[in-house]
Amino acid sequence: MDLKTLQDHPTLGFVDWTLRGIGQVVFQNNMLTGIVILIALFYNSWIYGSICILGAVVGTLTAILLKADKGLIKDGLFGFNGALVGLALVAFTSESFRTGAVPSAYMVAYIVFAAAFTSILFSSLATLLGPHKVAALTMPFVLTGWLFLFAVLKFDSIHAGPLAKPISPDQFPATAPYNLPTWYMGIGNAIGQIFFQDNWISGYIIVAGIAINSRISALMALIGAGLAALVAVIFGGPEGAIRDGLFGYNAALTALALGGFFLVLTPASFLYTLFGVVVTTWLWASVAIFLKPIGMPVLTSTFVVVTWAMLIGQYGFKALVPVPPAEATTPEDNLRRYHGTHT
Amino acid sequence: MDLKTLQDHPTLGFVDWTLRGIGQVVFQNNMLTGIVILIALFYNSWIYGSICILGAVVGTLTAILLKADKGLIKDGLFGFNGALVGLALVAFTSESFRTGAVPSAYMVAYIVFAAAFTSILFSSLATLLGPHKVAALTMPFVLTGWLFLFAVLKFDSIHAGPLAKPISPDQFPATAPYNLPTWYMGIGNAIGQIFFQDNWISGYIIVAGIAINSRISALMALIGAGLAALVAVIFGGPEGAIRDGLFGYNAALTALALGGFFLVLTPASFLYTLFGVVVTTWLWASVAIFLKPIGMPVLTSTFVVVTWAMLIGQYGFKALVPVPPAEATTPEDNLRRYHGTHT
Amino acid sequence: MDLKTLQDHPTLGFVDWTLRGIGQVVFQNNMLTGIVILIALFYNSWIYGSICILGAVVGTLTAILLKADKGLIKDGLFGFNGALVGLALVAFTSESFRTGAVPSAYMVAYIVFAAAFTSILFSSLATLLGPHKVAALTMPFVLTGWLFLFAVLKFDSIHAGPLAKPISPDQFPATAPYNLPTWYMGIGNAIGQIFFQDNWISGYIIVAGIAINSRISALMALIGAGLAALVAVIFGGPEGAIRDGLFGYNAALTALALGGFFLVLTPASFLYTLFGVVVTTWLWASVAIFLKPIGMPVLTSTFVVVTWAMLIGQYGFKALVPVPPAEATTPEDNLRRYHGTHT
Repeated sequence: MDLKTLQDHPTLGFVDWTLRGIGQVVFQNNMLTGIVILIALFYNSWIYGSICILGAVVGTLTAILLKADKGLIKDGLFGFNGALVGLALVAFTSESFRTGAVPSAYMVAYIVFAAAFTSILFSSLATLLGPHKVAALTMPFVLTGWLFLFAVLKFDSIHAGPLAKPISPDQFPATAPYNLPTWYMGIGNAIGQIFFQDNWISGYIIVAGIAINSRISALMALIGAGLAALVAVIFGGPEGAIRDGLFGYNAALTALALGGFFLVLTPASFLYTLFGVVVTTWLWASVAIFLKPIGMPVLTSTFVVVTWAMLIGQYGFKALVPVPPAEATTPEDNLRRYHGTHT
Repeated sequence: MDLKTLQDHPTLGFVDWTLRGIGQVVFQNNMLTGIVILIALFYNSWIYGSICILGAVVGTLTAILLKADKGLIKDGLFGFNGALVGLALVAFTSESFRTGAVPSAYMVAYIVFAAAFTSILFSSLATLLGPHKVAALTMPFVLTGWLFLFAVLKFDSIHAGPLAKPISPDQFPATAPYNLPTWYMGIGNAIGQIFFQDNWISGYIIVAGIAINSRISALMALIGAGLAALVAVIFGGPEGAIRDGLFGYNAALTALALGGFFLVLTPASFLYTLFGVVVTTWLWASVAIFLKPIGMPVLTSTFVVVTWAMLIGQYGFKALVPVPPAEATTPEDNLRRYHGTHT
Repeated sequence: MDLKTLQDHPTLGFVDWTLRGIGQVVFQNNMLTGIVILIALFYNSWIYGSICILGAVVGTLTAILLKADKGLIKDGLFGFNGALVGLALVAFTSESFRTGAVPSAYMVAYIVFAAAFTSILFSSLATLLGPHKVAALTMPFVLTGWLFLFAVLKFDSIHAGPLAKPISPDQFPATAPYNLPTWYMGIGNAIGQIFFQDNWISGYIIVAGIAINSRISALMALIGAGLAALVAVIFGGPEGAIRDGLFGYNAALTALALGGFFLVLTPASFLYTLFGVVVTTWLWASVAIFLKPIGMPVLTSTFVVVTWAMLIGQYGFKALVPVPPAEATTPEDNLRRYHGTHT
C-alpha cells in the first residue's frame, strides 16, 4: 500500500498521523521513522514505548476534536509535544528513570490533560509565531512539562519519588577521566535523551530511524551530539554528564533544526549550525544550573530558545536561505528545490 | 437617571468609570456590579474597600492624563488592574492578611506609582496583543504586583511584616479531612480571593454583584470555583488551602473568561472551559510551589497564562466561536448576537 | 577629514562603526563619544577598555559576516551589546570587580561566542519588535549575559571566583548615614556602572562624552542617576548601594531613552520620563533581590523592561509624541524636526 494513501485513509489514517507525530520530535514527517523510534523505545522499556504512543494519540485526538487544521494533523504536528510530555511526566516521577514506572490512574488522567494542553499551546504558539515564519518547535512540551511537573510533586494522589535523575552537570563527580565510552555512549545517549531514554543503543536505533527519511538529518543529529560532547570535554564538563548525553540532546535538536531543515544547507548555514550547537551546549549547562535549586529539568528549552533566536534573527541576514515551516520537508528536498529555482 | 447617561456625564462620569473598573476585575462592565463588589469588600474590611477605590481611581486618572482612548477609559478598562495592585500591596505587607493595615504615607506613594504603572502596562500589552484579538486580562496587575512586592520588602521606610498569608499548598497541614465547609466556604472564599478577601460571605456577595450584570457569568464563577475544589479534593490537595479558596480563584476567573465571555457559550466551548478550569487549578499549585522559595504569591498569573493560551490557540480551532475583546459584553449578549447572525 | 566620510570609508569605516557601537550603549551614534567612553574605561582599567573594544568588534564583525543590514552596521547597532556582554563576563568572573582580570584563552573564546550571539539576538528582537516601532535596546546583552554567566561558573576550564561584587541592596550594611559623597560619587558611579566601571570619575568622563553628541542626553543621564539616588534615599536604601551607583545605572539609561530620544522632549514626556526613572529605580531593587539567591546580577534588565513597557504603551496615549527608532538621532534633532513639521 502506498504510504501517502495511508495518510489519507479514513480510519487507518489516524495510526499514520500518530506515527508521524512521533517522528516529528526529530523533524521527520515519516511514519516509518515513527515506527523505528517506537522500536528504540520498546527496546529500552515497554512502559516508555506505550506512554509515547498514549501522548501522541491524545495530542492528535485533541486537535481532531477541536477541529484544527487537517493538514497539520495529518503531518503529525499535534502529536510530538504530547508524546514528549507523557514521557517527561513518567520519567521524572518514576523511581527508576531508566525504565520508568507504570503510572497510576491519577497519573494517567494527568498525562492525558497535559498532552491535550500541548495541542492547545501548539496552536497558540503557531498563531503567535506565524507572522515570523518560525515553528513552535517543542516549546508547548517544555512549558506544559514544567508547569505540570511542579504540581505533580504536591498532590497526595500522585506519589512522585525524589527526582531519580541528575538534572544538572554539578551533580556528577568532577574527577572521572574522559575515555572512549564517553564518546560513543555519550553521542548515542544524547539522541536517546531526546526521548528520555538513558540507553545509547536506543539512541543509535533512533538515528537509523531518522536516516530512513533523511540521511542529512541523521548526520546532523550525530554532528550535534558529537560537537556538544567535544565542547563539554574542552571546557571540562563532568564525564558522567557527557556520557549520559545530557550536554548533547538539546544540541542534537538544534543541529537537526538548523542543519538543512529550516535553513537550506550551504557552507554558511553549516557554520551557523555549528555555532548554534556550541551555544546550545553551553546554555544547557547554564539553564540546568539555574533550574537545579527548584528541581526542574531543562527539557528541550535551550534548543528552542537558541533555534528561535537564530531562525528569527536570520531574517535580518542575507547570508542564509530560510525555508518557511510550511515548506520544510527534508534537508534533501530543501536543497533540491533551492537548486531548482536557482539554476 | 439613566445609567448610560452617567457614563457620559462630564463630572460624575469619573465615578461611573471607576466603579466599572472595579466590576471589570470579574469582566462586568457595570457600575452596579462595582458598587456591590465594594459592599463586599467594606463588609470584610473598610481598609480593603478604600484601597480598592484608590487603585481604580489612580489607574483611571493616569489614563486620562496620558490621553488614552476615551472608550476604554469609560468602560473601566484602566481601573481594574490598579485596584488589584493596590489590594495586593496592602494584603501582602500587612500583619493581618484578613483585614489589611492602613498603609503608611510611603506605602501610599508606592501604591499610587504601582497603580499608575498598571495603566501604562495595560496599554502596552493591549498594543502587543491587539493583532491576536486577545485582551490583556490581569497581566498588568500580575507583573506590576510581582515587581513592586519584591522591592517593598527591602526599603527601610516601608515596614513589611513577613507574609502573613500562606501562599502555597504545601504550607497547609496535609492531614485535615474534607467536610462540608471545605465546599461552601471554599467556593465563596475562592471568589473572595480574586479581590484578596479571605471571607466567604464577601465572596458570595460578589457573585450576587456579578449576577446583576450576567447570570451566566455568576454561574460560571461558581462552576469554576467548585470544579477547582473538586479537582483539588480528588488529587488530595490540603483541606486548608481548598477551604481558603486558594485553588479556586484563578480557576473562577478562567471560567468567567472562557465561559461565554470571550467564546460564545456552546456545548463545545463549555467543555473547553471546564478543561481550562482543571488545568488552571493544577497550575496554580504548580506556580505556587515554584514561587514559594522566593516568597512571591501566584496572584492571578495562572488564570492569565491558561486563558491566553486557550484564547490564542482557539484561533486555530474551528470547533469554537471567538468574541473579539472589543465586542465582548456579556455571555448573554454574545449568545444573542451569535444566534442573530446565524438564523 | 569629514567624520561622515570615515563612516563610509572602505577600510577605516570598520573603526568608525566599532566606536559608534560603543557610543550606542548610551544612545549616541557618534564615534567621538565612543572614543571618550574608551578613555573613561582605560582610565579605570586597561583590561576593561580592551574587552570593550573586543566585544564591539566581534559583534560588528558577526553582523558583517552574516550580511546584516549595512545601515544598522554603520550606525554601530551591532556593536553595543557585544561590548556590554564582554565587560559583564569579565566583571563577574574576576577576583577584582574594580579592575577586572585578564581573561584566559577559554574565556576569550567564550566572550567571542557570546558577543557574536548578541548580534543574532539583536536581529531576532529587531524582527519581533519591528512592527511595534520599539528598539531592542540592551536586551540581547541582558539575555546573553544571564545565559552565559551561569554556565561559566561550572566549567572546569574557566576559573570563576565567587562574585566579587555585591549585586543586591541587602548585601550592604543598612546603617551607614547618607553624606555628600553618597550623592556626587553615587551619580558618577551610576553612569560608570552602565559599563561596569566602579569609578565615579570614569562616570563623569562618560557624561562628557555624551555631551559631545547631545547636551540634553548628558543632562538626562545626570537627572536619571540623581533622581534614582533621591528615591533610594527617601525610601531608605542602603548608603553603600547608592554610593556605588547600583540604584542608578538602569535609571540613567531609562532617562536617556525616554528623555528626548524615543519621545520628543515636551513637558508631558519629561514627566513621563521622571515617572519611568522612579519605577526603574524601585524595580532594580526588586529584581536584584529576586536574582540574588541564584547569584545573578540585574544587568540592565529593569531599564529594558520599563522602557519597553512605556514606549509600547505610549502608542495608546495621545499625550506623547513618539520618535520611531529608525528616525531617532538626538533629542535636539528630534525637537527640531518636530517643531519643523508643526510650525
